[in-house]
Amino acid sequence: MTSEQIKEDVYAMGKKAREAALALAVLSEEKKNEILRAMAAGIREAAAEILVANSKDLSVGEERGLTSAMLDRLRLDEARLEAVAAGVEKVATLPDPVGEVLEKWERPNGIEIEQVRVPIGVIGIIYESRPNVTSDAAVLCLKSGNATILRGGSEALHSNVALATALQNGGEKAGLPEGAIQLIPYTDRESVAVMAGMDQYLDLIIPRGGKGLIETVVSLARMPVIKHYDGICHAYIHPAADQEMAVGIVVDSKTQKPSVCNALETLLVDEAIAAEFLPKVAAALAVKNVELRGDEKTRSVIEAQAASEEDWGTEYLDYILSVKVVPSMVEAISHINHYSSQHTETIVTEDGEAAEFFLRNLDSACVFHNVSTRFSDGEEFGFGAEIGISTDKLHARGPMGLRELTSYQYRVRGNGQLKA
Amino acid sequence: MTSEQIKEDVYAMGKKAREAALALAVLSEEKKNEILRAMAAGIREAAAEILVANSKDLSVGEERGLTSAMLDRLRLDEARLEAVAAGVEKVATLPDPVGEVLEKWERPNGIEIEQVRVPIGVIGIIYESRPNVTSDAAVLCLKSGNATILRGGSEALHSNVALATALQNGGEKAGLPEGAIQLIPYTDRESVAVMAGMDQYLDLIIPRGGKGLIETVVSLARMPVIKHYDGICHAYIHPAADQEMAVGIVVDSKTQKPSVCNALETLLVDEAIAAEFLPKVAAALAVKNVELRGDEKTRSVIEAQAASEEDWGTEYLDYILSVKVVPSMVEAISHINHYSSQHTETIVTEDGEAAEFFLRNLDSACVFHNVSTRFSDGEEFGFGAEIGISTDKLHARGPMGLRELTSYQYRVRGNGQLKA
Repeated sequence: MTSEQIKEDVYAMGKKAREAALALAVLSEEKKNEILRAMAAGIREAAAEILVANSKDLSVGEERGLTSAMLDRLRLDEARLEAVAAGVEKVATLPDPVGEVLEKWERPNGIEIEQVRVPIGVIGIIYESRPNVTSDAAVLCLKSGNATILRGGSEALHSNVALATALQNGGEKAGLPEGAIQLIPYTDRESVAVMAGMDQYLDLIIPRGGKGLIETVVSLARMPVIKHYDGICHAYIHPAADQEMAVGIVVDSKTQKPSVCNALETLLVDEAIAAEFLPKVAAALAVKNVELRGDEKTRSVIEAQAASEEDWGTEYLDYILSVKVVPSMVEAISHINHYSSQHTETIVTEDGEAAEFFLRNLDSACVFHNVSTRFSDGEEFGFGAEIGISTDKLHARGPMGLRELTSYQYRVRGNGQLKA
Repeated sequence: MTSEQIKEDVYAMGKKAREAALALAVLSEEKKNEILRAMAAGIREAAAEILVANSKDLSVGEERGLTSAMLDRLRLDEARLEAVAAGVEKVATLPDPVGEVLEKWERPNGIEIEQVRVPIGVIGIIYESRPNVTSDAAVLCLKSGNATILRGGSEALHSNVALATALQNGGEKAGLPEGAIQLIPYTDRESVAVMAGMDQYLDLIIPRGGKGLIETVVSLARMPVIKHYDGICHAYIHPAADQEMAVGIVVDSKTQKPSVCNALETLLVDEAIAAEFLPKVAAALAVKNVELRGDEKTRSVIEAQAASEEDWGTEYLDYILSVKVVPSMVEAISHINHYSSQHTETIVTEDGEAAEFFLRNLDSACVFHNVSTRFSDGEEFGFGAEIGISTDKLHARGPMGLRELTSYQYRVRGNGQLKA
């Protein structure tokens, strides 16, 4: 494929997606749900083709020497495919955000202004992960009235093409506009660059994957990008903490699932209770085989590796925790505002006033009081589904559900008002 | 100045702005209003210095051969400066959006989730226009709790520096954090490039100026950009229009102030009434000396220049109007969704159902029924102030007031909830 051909093909997909988006924007909730159910049926009907395509990806992956963990993430089987189809059906049961009147008011001159939720338009999803993202992302975009252009990783190319085709073909039986779900069949960086420059057709790009991919998209994109960098989450244990609760929250936040973005990475303990609390939490974390990396004061109380400056800015995603003793809550806040990735932080305290001060003074998407950081999640927030967690501040911040895939429009009604 | 020095200076400003933003975020509404009043006093106290600085810009501008219109836009005098100060005081009377609880709900596990409006952080404003933008932009950002880094055009450099200094110095007397309002003293493209890359310190850039400037910012920016490209606004006259009202709306939209983004640029007339309506509207527009550029069908009814393909995508900002006869409302909608800059469109009709169809099917920020396009404006919407009109779809769309300069944060309160 020459660069020119890739560009031509991707732009043609963009144009089709824009047309599909205009048609999708005015579909009723009932129609979209009917399409979603047809898409689930489409996956079930094409199950054999999808599994054949997936086995091709698996063979190529084995040849390329993917680890068994990577191969397992790539693998689809009947049960996993049924879960994907059931996931599509579940989205049909979620409330449609489109058309919601956000605000309505009348001006003294009689003009009525209504702010109404509308779809964003065309959303580009660039991802590296499991093939089920193809379906998850496309159907959430569809339910919120958006067309999608998907660009997955090379390891899952055959599976992704088969899944996207099944979704589009299934949906079309119930009236899905042509071009509503398209997958770019090129997996080189070139196609990412083309997408990033195509701002007349793409209203938003959501990259899902490693830092390298996100960095590329951020550098090149002419349109808005909603991204998730790190999850460097903190817990601060205040002098007035219920220490038993604090141990529970630290252990849960760190070890309930260490590989995810809302897992705890740094523990800050107030100096006033460090001598009493650190041994308790260290004992509980030792049971889970958590490696501790502490500052000097921490290491004067408990055994821990010496933490380096780098540790405070590291997302371990592993059974490792950095620990620091801080002289005050204000210092804890400064540390967090400096080192955090602005994802999720929690304070443990029985002092409500202190907690409110902590929450108000942090520049992070999610700030918790007496809650495990693991609850920073669209499902746990009650959104019914999650397209991702944004560490950005604009448009969408924190867990993103269907509403975060919408924009708004002002609809204004009058009776001939003139400015002159 | 070497590139290295510019970068070092601008990054140092970014770091200071980030610290100021954390302090600004927790100021009370009363405190911010006190600061704003002190900033207005600061402008009045520094009036002599500001006017001297402005006269320097005017001398340089004369030497450089600026037109008299450009010099007039650049010129400050006592009355204009007093209007700037009064504008700052007015912002003190607007409601503070920060702290507003957008939503609040409880999960079955007892966790309480609150979505609260918070400032964005540090906002970069890159502008080319009149020196009063320095003040207008900085104070709107301040009222919404944000720090600003301003980068104005070279013609107004001395005036901008003097104004920004007066605002910061005046504000500091009432407790404005150091670095809350900073102006970059470099006016070359290099400083724009440095700002665009500084995403650790700048949460948002708002470029205000010509297409070249906006294009540069969009190409380089790693952070979100909220911009205003064109205002190619349309009016569609439906067969069921009150034709007298339609003539009034077309004339007002086109001629009440042709140089602004919400002025009408293209008139679409339904074929069913073209023979009757076109002569009426042409006569009324002739009184205002509006040049018409029509398609073939238009020119078979009234006199007009021949419109080229380019005309449909042109923002004239002048006494020129392109006119097209369309066979149906659906064709009008297609034309608009294809050529519009998604700013503002209006339909004139007495048929409410047709109007609703028109509003729902357009992919534009503001869609009007029986209202002049000139009402697409923050003041007219009742926002009290306007930082600009966004032709983007993400974060802020259409007229932007103080609320559009905020983000949100989830504050979550529990009593020890664990995921495990």
